[in-house]
Amino acid sequence: MAHKSVTETSIQQTRRAPFKSGDEATGRTSGKAAPTEARGKMARNESALVPPSRVIIDRIRPEIDGGKFAARLYIDQEVEVEAVLIVDGHDKPKGRLFYRHEDAKAWQWTLLKDKGNDIWTARFKPEKLGRYLVTVEAAVDRFTTWRMDLKKRVAAGQNVQVDLQIGILLIESWIPELLDDREKRLVGAAMAQLNDLSKGESFDEASISAVLDDPALKAIGDKLFDQKSLVRFEREIPLQIEPVIARFSSWYEFFPRSASNEPGRHGTFRDAAEKLEHVKEMGFDVVYFPPIHPIGVQFRKGKNNVLTTEAGDVGSPWAIGGKEGGHTALHPDLGTFADFNFLLSRAKKLGIEIAMDIAFQCSPDHPYVKEHPEWFKKRPDGTIQYAENPPKKYQDIYPFDFECADWRGLWEELKNVVQFWVDRGVRVFRVDNPHTKPFHFWEWLINEIRSERPDVIFLAEAFTRPHVMAYLAKSGFSQSYTYFTWRNLKWEIEQYMNELTQTELIDYFGANFWPNTPDILPESLQIGGRPAFMQRVILAATLSSNYGVYGPAFEHMEWKPRHEGSEEYLDSEKYQLRHWDWKREDSLAPLLQRLNQIRREQTALQSNRGFRFHPTTNDKIVAYSKSTENGERVLVVVNLDPHHKQSGTVELPLIDWKIDENETFQVHDQLTDARYFWSGWRNYVELDPHSLPAHIFVIKRRAHAVSEFDYFH
Amino acid sequence: MAHKSVTETSIQQTRRAPFKSGDEATGRTSGKAAPTEARGKMARNESALVPPSRVIIDRIRPEIDGGKFAARLYIDQEVEVEAVLIVDGHDKPKGRLFYRHEDAKAWQWTLLKDKGNDIWTARFKPEKLGRYLVTVEAAVDRFTTWRMDLKKRVAAGQNVQVDLQIGILLIESWIPELLDDREKRLVGAAMAQLNDLSKGESFDEASISAVLDDPALKAIGDKLFDQKSLVRFEREIPLQIEPVIARFSSWYEFFPRSASNEPGRHGTFRDAAEKLEHVKEMGFDVVYFPPIHPIGVQFRKGKNNVLTTEAGDVGSPWAIGGKEGGHTALHPDLGTFADFNFLLSRAKKLGIEIAMDIAFQCSPDHPYVKEHPEWFKKRPDGTIQYAENPPKKYQDIYPFDFECADWRGLWEELKNVVQFWVDRGVRVFRVDNPHTKPFHFWEWLINEIRSERPDVIFLAEAFTRPHVMAYLAKSGFSQSYTYFTWRNLKWEIEQYMNELTQTELIDYFGANFWPNTPDILPESLQIGGRPAFMQRVILAATLSSNYGVYGPAFEHMEWKPRHEGSEEYLDSEKYQLRHWDWKREDSLAPLLQRLNQIRREQTALQSNRGFRFHPTTNDKIVAYSKSTENGERVLVVVNLDPHHKQSGTVELPLIDWKIDENETFQVHDQLTDARYFWSGWRNYVELDPHSLPAHIFVIKRRAHAVSEFDYFH
Repeated sequence: MAHKSVTETSIQQTRRAPFKSGDEATGRTSGKAAPTEARGKMARNESALVPPSRVIIDRIRPEIDGGKFAARLYIDQEVEVEAVLIVDGHDKPKGRLFYRHEDAKAWQWTLLKDKGNDIWTARFKPEKLGRYLVTVEAAVDRFTTWRMDLKKRVAAGQNVQVDLQIGILLIESWIPELLDDREKRLVGAAMAQLNDLSKGESFDEASISAVLDDPALKAIGDKLFDQKSLVRFEREIPLQIEPVIARFSSWYEFFPRSASNEPGRHGTFRDAAEKLEHVKEMGFDVVYFPPIHPIGVQFRKGKNNVLTTEAGDVGSPWAIGGKEGGHTALHPDLGTFADFNFLLSRAKKLGIEIAMDIAFQCSPDHPYVKEHPEWFKKRPDGTIQYAENPPKKYQDIYPFDFECADWRGLWEELKNVVQFWVDRGVRVFRVDNPHTKPFHFWEWLINEIRSERPDVIFLAEAFTRPHVMAYLAKSGFSQSYTYFTWRNLKWEIEQYMNELTQTELIDYFGANFWPNTPDILPESLQIGGRPAFMQRVILAATLSSNYGVYGPAFEHMEWKPRHEGSEEYLDSEKYQLRHWDWKREDSLAPLLQRLNQIRREQTALQSNRGFRFHPTTNDKIVAYSKSTENGERVLVVVNLDPHHKQSGTVELPLIDWKIDENETFQVHDQLTDARYFWSGWRNYVELDPHSLPAHIFVIKRRAHAVSEFDYFH
Repeated sequence: MAHKSVTETSIQQTRRAPFKSGDEATGRTSGKAAPTEARGKMARNESALVPPSRVIIDRIRPEIDGGKFAARLYIDQEVEVEAVLIVDGHDKPKGRLFYRHEDAKAWQWTLLKDKGNDIWTARFKPEKLGRYLVTVEAAVDRFTTWRMDLKKRVAAGQNVQVDLQIGILLIESWIPELLDDREKRLVGAAMAQLNDLSKGESFDEASISAVLDDPALKAIGDKLFDQKSLVRFEREIPLQIEPVIARFSSWYEFFPRSASNEPGRHGTFRDAAEKLEHVKEMGFDVVYFPPIHPIGVQFRKGKNNVLTTEAGDVGSPWAIGGKEGGHTALHPDLGTFADFNFLLSRAKKLGIEIAMDIAFQCSPDHPYVKEHPEWFKKRPDGTIQYAENPPKKYQDIYPFDFECADWRGLWEELKNVVQFWVDRGVRVFRVDNPHTKPFHFWEWLINEIRSERPDVIFLAEAFTRPHVMAYLAKSGFSQSYTYFTWRNLKWEIEQYMNELTQTELIDYFGANFWPNTPDILPESLQIGGRPAFMQRVILAATLSSNYGVYGPAFEHMEWKPRHEGSEEYLDSEKYQLRHWDWKREDSLAPLLQRLNQIRREQTALQSNRGFRFHPTTNDKIVAYSKSTENGERVLVVVNLDPHHKQSGTVELPLIDWKIDENETFQVHDQLTDARYFWSGWRNYVELDPHSLPAHIFVIKRRAHAVSEFDYFH
């Protein structure tokens, strides 16, 4: 290969193409457009190829797979974007973050701030839900570099005549087209003053500062970027701004058909609406119903999942579709659309979102089977392929063939199903087994729905392998069920939480912790009694900002499996009506109520950022805290043993918490309202699972002024 | 926004564009081309948009910044590429790795193997140095999925008539154009046999296996990819195949001008050539010389870096350029090009690479200053800008202005300087302060040089901030100096090594550990005496596969700084001639010799992969091991205290090492030749720094057959 000259060779350089917007720059440390017009004019010789910029924008964060997917951020919080900027030598870089909602044409920008270690950050407040794009521009900050050096030279008593002249030339190179008359006058005056100063013999920082550190001059300098070294990151990075409920939600699942007040009577939407009051009292804000559609008759499963039915068996709500209709119809025994609307409006009044179940599969009686046989797979014998996990057969369920010839018709129809419920006011969807349908289908469907309604969120019920769960989250699911249900030991909980909060998963995986579901009665709840239920729900509600329970089975501490070794509930509501006494004396409802109240009061519990574990001297005691940027801090200590009292010491990171080693601080238990004075980084705890297996402490430092009413803040 | 139909919407899908090569497929589990021709024909309806593939290629590794930079791999090792492949439902994916050297047109491919947890891998042996490109294709493995299910159905005693018919249809869909006549006959026979089997009443796995698990049929299945779901990763990922010396090298730096046998006489290339024998005896394979060019006279620094010179002061070799020439000239006192060639040929005979110093800066006397004043920055007073780190001034050094109007001329000239030495046989370059020159300059220069000579390697002397060092490595430097020089405590060493080996740095950052350099006499060597020198070089040589020392100062244990608190050597060779007694009795040369021999014998020490720390009960004792894929294992235990004997127990990961808890295994100290029998995962060590502060153990398990001569292997 022959030697290539510089001009022939492709130097790996980020594009310097200006933003398309033709608006002129207006900002100071932030603004509304990129100064595209001016950029070209700065090049000394327009026909010459300028050297590649000396500034490197090494990476932008958060960024998922190089911008292929969007990180998940939330409308109530400022978006913080981080870039690594480096320049050779000791020159300083200068950068700005550009951002816009994808619906907006114009970019806005704000200056990046040096965070140390070559990391620069900027924040902006998102104005609306949906997709934002961000990118970064950077240049050599010749003015600041020169100013910094000048300070050092003056301090060392050096003659800076020539250096002041260099500064004048620098300021002269500022883009005059971007300055208004006032600014031009200011710049001119500064140059004249510097010129005077440069004629002196000795140089004092005070008189130099008087000219150079004038805020008005600085503001001009801030908005001007050296065009010779200006470079733009090679990609625009998408960020998804989510509604708050995507990050902070407390779910309660119940079967409306079991909501009747009379044992044996099929519950209705009106019954369920009545129960909402109780759920609201417990403090939940999302109520999730298993499917509410007509249920198939062919191959209907009987009580406890047997293959034969008895008269009156109601079938599984997930066997969707009957002669009364399919995914857009209501089960006649639950009520009419008028009843359903009543339920929704009741929920709305209570501040509860009703979450619908999206289970894209059909019973053999579903209207689609006759109307669209092309949407199902046919076997060579002419029968329709039912669901299988060989050798297991699920003859009551027909899966869709997402690759069928009319896949577009099918996909559109399924999107219309979701849209149907969105149009009726539903904003939260729990998707049944999304991992058994194509990933691209979900990505498309969710994008389609959210392009109009970015306030709609989807929870993925994918209890499957880690990479599959992660990919669904990247594809668009705001929330996901997790392995929490089976993580009981201290090391298991620590390992899993660290994976969720200390890896890139924190940027896109919206964990939702469930101690139980209608499908899963975990072993811990079968053998641990009341303490286990308390432990598991306290963990769920304080480890994860999203959590949920399946009730009333949970607060009534249902613990009997169908048989030993099974995780299925005995007499599961999946296959039969149940009657619940919602006012049971021994219910855990008061604990749930208290937990939800603590979650509402303690901002730190409303996000999984700021999470960390703390060492304890006892493997049965797990300790962790959540903190906000404002220094609000919740420390949770849980005894994981459902049988015995456990004690030990908890080690606290006092330095990080800015608490002196000798300082006495208050820990205020939100569960019992007890207050303790602690000091030092090791403190003793003792927890009896039979009374209360956990502390949820708010950490308060002593107020500095004794005169304040509350001595701790 | 209006609803979009599927066809209108951009579904985020990886391209399915076939590879450009028109060659036909030949491979079985590997091959030479992509079956591009066939792919289109499989689509049922060519005019219809097929649904996006159900297979997701989630990521490929190693991948640096989404393929912007190349991971660093080595010519003596197989390249292993990993991809995460997922499909919805319980279908299996199937994938193949495509790879080619960038000079080759044709792609080669090999099947990916399932490694578990949705990770698939394949390996290939690189045939030559330079840049390779890799990518991955994947499809649903419909045949394997069906075969797997069939086994389960038969095992459960189910009637599989219809399933066998489904299999026949599957095989029928195999691409007939890609089969030769023999293969077509085979496929036809298999289909007929399956048809016969499907007519039976009961089904036994043996007769089904006889047809389906026939290796010839399997080979046909392996090479055919389901065209409906075939998808290709969206990018081609570059990999840099490096010479072995980039990964495994032992450096020895000395000043040729101090190589004279007579005190006071300026050393020559011939003197240096003689010393090579000694260096070879110590076992080093790279000898690095500070700059060997003419040295400037103006502003020359005197002994111990003073601003005034005395008669006979030789100046710093980094003040490059005098009336005798610049970067392509030789210092006349060192000798002529004939002498230099003699030195190179002597090195070649000894198997030593001579590493040149590339310091792109000029003394005021450099010919460039007169011939190309446009390559330097001018100050407003007309003088040339000398090097500065305000308020410090380096008036003996003029830096180049890499952004000058004639930047292309300058860049080309500097490339020609490197090429000049490459043309004379130099293959290793140590680059002085690369972080003070533009990053894009290095990326361009290194690519240019290596496009012809990929066996040339560059070591970055950038003792600077972490992101800058990492970026230089990404830009093309095969090796880099590190912070090892200042990492002395156990936690410091552990933290730093974990950063280098357990993060993505392992894929591109070629660490080179130096206990000392002419610029750095670290505090540890100033106060620790002989034990400190032993500790530091044992650490360097066993922690990092690349290491080096600056000698003879190192093995002679020079420890005096210019003044207290300084890291500069007293009477540094940077500013004066020194005379060394290369045969000194108390020299550490024998230790260096032994270390280098151990490094040559133990493959595990020749790479930083397979590195891990082991817990010890004493903070002064650090323990770590390196392992190869073949199970070769070196365990190193170092007492970090230069003053006192230290003892403790080392905890070994016996399970990972496949050693039974009750098994007795041998640890064979390579430094002393002592052998110990150990058993269990905790073993006692005691190390006296005044005799030998470390063990370098080879771990040997007992041979299974007592008859073998060597009972441990």
